[in-house]
Amino acid sequence: MERMDWNALAARIAAPDSEVAASVQRLLDQKTKPQGSLGRLEEIAVRLAAIRRATTFATSPRAVVVMAADHGVARQGVSAYPAAVTAQMVKNFAAGGAAINVLARQFAARTVIVDMGVAGDHDWPKDVRRCSLGPGTADMTVEPAMSELRAEQAIGAGAAIVAELAAAGCRLVATGDMGIGNTTAAAALTAVLTKRPPAEVTGRGTGIGDEALARKIAVVERALALHRPRRERPLEALACVGGFEIAGLVGVILGGAAAGLPVVLDGFIAGAAALLAVAIAPAARAYLFAGHRSVEAGHRAVLTALGLEPILDLGLRLGEGTGAVLALPILDAAGRVLDEMASFESAGVSGPADGSR
Amino acid sequence: MERMDWNALAARIAAPDSEVAASVQRLLDQKTKPQGSLGRLEEIAVRLAAIRRATTFATSPRAVVVMAADHGVARQGVSAYPAAVTAQMVKNFAAGGAAINVLARQFAARTVIVDMGVAGDHDWPKDVRRCSLGPGTADMTVEPAMSELRAEQAIGAGAAIVAELAAAGCRLVATGDMGIGNTTAAAALTAVLTKRPPAEVTGRGTGIGDEALARKIAVVERALALHRPRRERPLEALACVGGFEIAGLVGVILGGAAAGLPVVLDGFIAGAAALLAVAIAPAARAYLFAGHRSVEAGHRAVLTALGLEPILDLGLRLGEGTGAVLALPILDAAGRVLDEMASFESAGVSGPADGSR
Repeated sequence: MERMDWNALAARIAAPDSEVAASVQRLLDQKTKPQGSLGRLEEIAVRLAAIRRATTFATSPRAVVVMAADHGVARQGVSAYPAAVTAQMVKNFAAGGAAINVLARQFAARTVIVDMGVAGDHDWPKDVRRCSLGPGTADMTVEPAMSELRAEQAIGAGAAIVAELAAAGCRLVATGDMGIGNTTAAAALTAVLTKRPPAEVTGRGTGIGDEALARKIAVVERALALHRPRRERPLEALACVGGFEIAGLVGVILGGAAAGLPVVLDGFIAGAAALLAVAIAPAARAYLFAGHRSVEAGHRAVLTALGLEPILDLGLRLGEGTGAVLALPILDAAGRVLDEMASFESAGVSGPADGSR
Repeated sequence: MERMDWNALAARIAAPDSEVAASVQRLLDQKTKPQGSLGRLEEIAVRLAAIRRATTFATSPRAVVVMAADHGVARQGVSAYPAAVTAQMVKNFAAGGAAINVLARQFAARTVIVDMGVAGDHDWPKDVRRCSLGPGTADMTVEPAMSELRAEQAIGAGAAIVAELAAAGCRLVATGDMGIGNTTAAAALTAVLTKRPPAEVTGRGTGIGDEALARKIAVVERALALHRPRRERPLEALACVGGFEIAGLVGVILGGAAAGLPVVLDGFIAGAAALLAVAIAPAARAYLFAGHRSVEAGHRAVLTALGLEPILDLGLRLGEGTGAVLALPILDAAGRVLDEMASFESAGVSGPADGSR
C-alpha cells in the first residue's frame, strides 16, 4: 500500500454550495407547511443539497463501510468480550447475521466489510475486503499502537475504498466498525483531541463493570502519559493510541468528503475517526452527519467538539454502523419532502393571514 | 351515527402479553450483540411483540388516519393561517402533495383521510371519508365546542374506521390531524387533563408571534373558566373544549387498542387525544408509541403524563401524522432485528469472557 498524499486529498475537499443551500431553503419555504415546521428535516435537506450541489436529491445507492481490526490493548482486560470475537463477528457480517446486516438490508445500504487488521489467519469469504495492516495493533500501554506509516496506509485504504464506491455511483457513505478494545482507543483519541480527562470520555463499551471501567480509565491514562500525543499532531495521536479500523475510517471520511458524498457517522468509534479527519482537513466537517448519540460516555464530548447534533438518540451502544444506518430513512425523508411536496401555489393553499412567507 | 358503547369498547382492551415480552427479551439477549446494546430498539421490539402476542413481527400493512376538522375558536385569532386552510389541505392530502403523503409513501403506510367536520360544502375526491359532525365546532369561548352526543359519535366514527382497517389486515395504525385552531383545543384539553396552567401548555402552533400567543393563552383561560371541565369527566372536557378530529382520534386510539394494534401517535393533537383515551380506558396506554417529541410547548407535559418516551426528537411541529410516520422505520427495525439477527450459538460467536449473558 502506498503512503497517503494528505495535501492532495485535503485539497479536493470543497465547501458545500451555499447558493444551493439558500435556494433549497426558499423552496422549502414555499411548500404546504408552516415555515420551519419540519424542523431538522429541513436543515438536513438543505445540507444534503449543498453537498450534492443540486436542488434534487439522491441518497441512494449507498454503502456502509464496516471496518474491523484487533487491538493490542485488549490484553489489558478492557473489554467484556474475548478478542476472538472480532474475527467471529467479521464472519457473522459476511454471513448476514449481525445487526448491521439486518438494518442495511432494511434501509437498502450495501455492506462493505473490511479486514483492516484482524488477528489470526482467516479464510474470509470473498466479500470481505482484505486491507490488513497486521494482526491487530500493538498494546498502546507499552509501545505505539502502530507506526505513522501504517496509519497513513490505513487512511489511504479507507479513502481508496470510498473513491471506488463513488466511482461506481455510490451517493452516500455510512461508517461502521468492529474491534474488541476499540472503545479504549477511541477514548484515548477523544481525550487527546477534545483535551478532556480520560475519566470523562472513557465508558463501558460492550458493558464492563465498575472494576473493569476503572482499569480501562487507568489504561488510557497510562497510554497518554507514555506517548504524550498532541491535538496538533493528529497523525501521531492516531499512530500512538489509535486502531487500524479507526485509521481506515479517517480515510473513509476524508475520501467521502473529497468525493462530495455525505458521510453518516455511527457512534463513538466513528466520532473519534471524525475528530481526526477534521483535525487533518477541517473542510471535511461540512460533509458529516451524526447518525445518533451513543450512550458511550465519551460520545457527547465528540459531538460537541464536532458541532454535530445527532439525528437519533435511541440508547444504542452497539457500533457496527447500526446508528448510522438507522438514520438513513430520516435523511431519505428530508430529500423526498423537498422533491415531492406541493407548494402553496401549486396546491392552491392559502399562506399565513398576515401575508408573511 | 350511533352513540358509542364505552364499556364494550374499553372491555375489549386486553393487557399486552407479558409472557411473550419476557420470551422476546430472552431471544434478544441471545443475539450477537452485547446485552441491551440496541437500547430502545429492544424495548420497542419487546412492546410490539407483547401487543401482537407473538414472537414474530408484523408492522405492515399499516395506515395513518389523518382526521380533519374546523374549530370555531379559530375566529378568536389563535392561528397564523386562515380557517380555509383546513379544507385546502384536505384537498392537498387527497392529491398526494402534503408532507404526510410524501412520508406515508416512503414508509409504506396507507393514508386514510377523514373529514370529521370541515367547514364549507366540499365535493371531496372519493378517497376522502365523510364522517362530518358539522361545519366545525362552536367557539369554545362562547359555548361548548360540541355536544357530548357529537363527541361520542366522533369517537365511534374513529373506532369504526380502525375496526374496519384491522378487519382488512392492517397491523399498525398511526394518527394524523389537520385543523386550523386545533392546537388551541389541544392546549385546553392538556391543561385540564394534566392540571397545568394554560400558559404552560399553550404554544405557537403554526408559528404565531408573541401577541397572538398571549391572545391564545387568554382564549384557553377564558374557555376553561367558562366550562370548568374536570379531568375526572373526560367526555365532558372533550365536548366543551375539544375538536371533532381530536374526538375522532380518541376513537382511533381506543379502537386500535381494542383491536390489539400498536398505535403510533404524532404530536400535540394526538397527545391530547391520547390523554382523553387513557382517561376513558387506562388499558389503552400499553398500546401507545410516541412517534416524536413536537416542539409545541405542551407536548412535553403530554408525554410526561402519558409516561411515553418519544422515538424521534427532530424539532417537528407540522402535525398531519408526519412525526408518527417518520418513526415507522424505527419500529420496523426493532422487529426485524428480532426476526433476522443470528444468535451467539448459531453464528459461533463467543459470549462475554466472564460467562455472563
